[in-house]
Amino acid sequence: MPEPFAFTIEAVDGETGARAGRFTTPHGAVQTPAFMPVGTQATVKALDPDDLHAVRAQIILSNTYHLSLRPGAAVVTAAGGLHRFMAWDGPILTDSGGFQVFSLGARRTVDDDGVTFRSHLDGSLHRFTPESVIALEEALGADIIMPLDECVALPAADATVRDALYRTQRWLERALSAKRRDDQALFAIVQGGLSHALRREGAAFAAQCDVPGIAIGGLSVGETKAEMDATLAATTEQLPADRPRYLMGVGAPEDLWACVARGVDMFDCVLPARVARHGGLYTPEGRMSIGNARYRDLHAAFDATCGCPTCRQFSAAYLHHLYRTKELLWYRLATIHNLWFILRQMEEIRGAIPDGSFTARHAAFRARYRTADRTAAGDARAQFVASRGRR
Amino acid sequence: MPEPFAFTIEAVDGETGARAGRFTTPHGAVQTPAFMPVGTQATVKALDPDDLHAVRAQIILSNTYHLSLRPGAAVVTAAGGLHRFMAWDGPILTDSGGFQVFSLGARRTVDDDGVTFRSHLDGSLHRFTPESVIALEEALGADIIMPLDECVALPAADATVRDALYRTQRWLERALSAKRRDDQALFAIVQGGLSHALRREGAAFAAQCDVPGIAIGGLSVGETKAEMDATLAATTEQLPADRPRYLMGVGAPEDLWACVARGVDMFDCVLPARVARHGGLYTPEGRMSIGNARYRDLHAAFDATCGCPTCRQFSAAYLHHLYRTKELLWYRLATIHNLWFILRQMEEIRGAIPDGSFTARHAAFRARYRTADRTAAGDARAQFVASRGRR
Repeated sequence: MPEPFAFTIEAVDGETGARAGRFTTPHGAVQTPAFMPVGTQATVKALDPDDLHAVRAQIILSNTYHLSLRPGAAVVTAAGGLHRFMAWDGPILTDSGGFQVFSLGARRTVDDDGVTFRSHLDGSLHRFTPESVIALEEALGADIIMPLDECVALPAADATVRDALYRTQRWLERALSAKRRDDQALFAIVQGGLSHALRREGAAFAAQCDVPGIAIGGLSVGETKAEMDATLAATTEQLPADRPRYLMGVGAPEDLWACVARGVDMFDCVLPARVARHGGLYTPEGRMSIGNARYRDLHAAFDATCGCPTCRQFSAAYLHHLYRTKELLWYRLATIHNLWFILRQMEEIRGAIPDGSFTARHAAFRARYRTADRTAAGDARAQFVASRGRR
Repeated sequence: MPEPFAFTIEAVDGETGARAGRFTTPHGAVQTPAFMPVGTQATVKALDPDDLHAVRAQIILSNTYHLSLRPGAAVVTAAGGLHRFMAWDGPILTDSGGFQVFSLGARRTVDDDGVTFRSHLDGSLHRFTPESVIALEEALGADIIMPLDECVALPAADATVRDALYRTQRWLERALSAKRRDDQALFAIVQGGLSHALRREGAAFAAQCDVPGIAIGGLSVGETKAEMDATLAATTEQLPADRPRYLMGVGAPEDLWACVARGVDMFDCVLPARVARHGGLYTPEGRMSIGNARYRDLHAAFDATCGCPTCRQFSAAYLHHLYRTKELLWYRLATIHNLWFILRQMEEIRGAIPDGSFTARHAAFRARYRTADRTAAGDARAQFVASRGRR
């Protein structure tokens, strides 16, 4: 792994294989397992960098597809790169935009060389190739960058899944050849749908590539939680232990625990912000709806045990009022609360691995936390894929 | 003036009569002339109390009409009052809601005893009387409270203006009789449209009432800036020197300077937030549109001389991007910038009165600042009255 990147495993849970480690980037180290708040358009929705520090975010994610359309990679380069543009001095990962482009459905056509698509904003015609995406990501300047991949919505025919896997592999090789900057870590992405055989093949391929980290894509896109778990297990079993594993687009609190148990080290998901937008706030008992009438007269913290900047300063009754009146302040306060909750879960997970309490704490979490969805975190993502939305 | 309220004039500009003073409330003193950011629904849109402290807001305004509908005065009382409900420990003024109710047009009917109206939210029927409004404001617990008044949209027939003036006067007497709490200052409101005779009469009436402050209502509702200025001058000439004068719903930067020159001490206006919502940012040269293409590549502070938290941390190019992508962060950063600008104008005004430089600085401001509107600050408010909107 080229300097300054380094990944060290500090502890492995004997029962599950859950790993606690540390991934070093040019903008600082990330304690893993880590959750990355999503700042699609160079802003984690409603938050500023001080808010991100306040919730103790270690690393954030942004998106090449969105940034290439607005403001354009050249603007970000002229700003001195994405870190300076958005005034965030910690590590950043840029997704390639493969997921977004393939979510465009009829608005895109894929060929072996790349993908042609129409912008969701104005219908203008664009083309991504493995090489052009690397050029965009080098212009943006994130610490970790992702190659263009082909992401398939599930369920899908076997041949479609296989073609996408192999195309993703060929595109990774081209991305590696195109890459010029030494201060960015290009991860591989493993596709393969729900086929354990294809996932194992994809994992083995990624393992023999010269990449400092390996992402698992194409999950949480409409399959059940059981399907996701089995497929994930088949994948991570084949991955080398010495590189970080990033499960893309996951997840809900229950998924974070379950997937760490499968050996995942990094996550990203828009769920904390989306849940907030719809009035949802996380608690150790599950997701609650602040719009519920019982909060109207609760003149105390929404969650007295929480400790987040929102719960420290404001009452549940005030949050209920802000949500019901659709005040802008709601979105910020709720996103702070939900990210705080998720990031504190990750801290508990990290702490539990070295001290051998991971399985017991995972069981305690499951006994207490009522999950909102029966399907994978992908409920919302699957709808999104179907609706050609934008994460 | 009952304890703890006190108003002391510290300096008067010899040329104009502009006054620098200090109004003391149970939640602290306010240096005048003062601008009050508007928090209609118990939140200054997009900002939290730390943001208000960061822009050095001294006092904020909220609204009885809106709060009585949502969350309801009883909820605020149960929270321990408006200060605790919204976690703002500085002074608060609540407007009575007269302006909002009369803006409802056909949805309200006025009689001598009060006004019956349908909520803009759900059409439910409500009634305000001078006494019920005082009860609501005592339940909310602001430091300064306003009586129910009748506000007339201009232009209006003489008889309509006269009737509204006299009704407002009778309602003030009833409000004074109904008032029970000693820790709230009930101001008078002078109406009278553009009639100098009625304004003088209204001012003389307010002067002989036992009130610790006098508001000037019914301006900035569709008249020209020249009409507003002349009417304001006719009013303030008749007001006692020893009590603060609050011009309701004003204003734009140029109006603040001009109205302080007429002896006004307090202002409120939604303009800084509304301007922000539409991409406008104040500068010493006038209001600029951040959506303008020239900001796309300006990788420096929007205004290098500004010093506000937004300009200190973010570039114009980033603000341009946030505005173009309609990101939530834009509204907060822009409101912070605009309130900072307005509040620093007020600080410059306050400083200029004791040192005799007010007229020179006012001239310098006018020479540099290009005004956006030819009519009174009321441009937007007049549209609002016409459209039965909500400030």
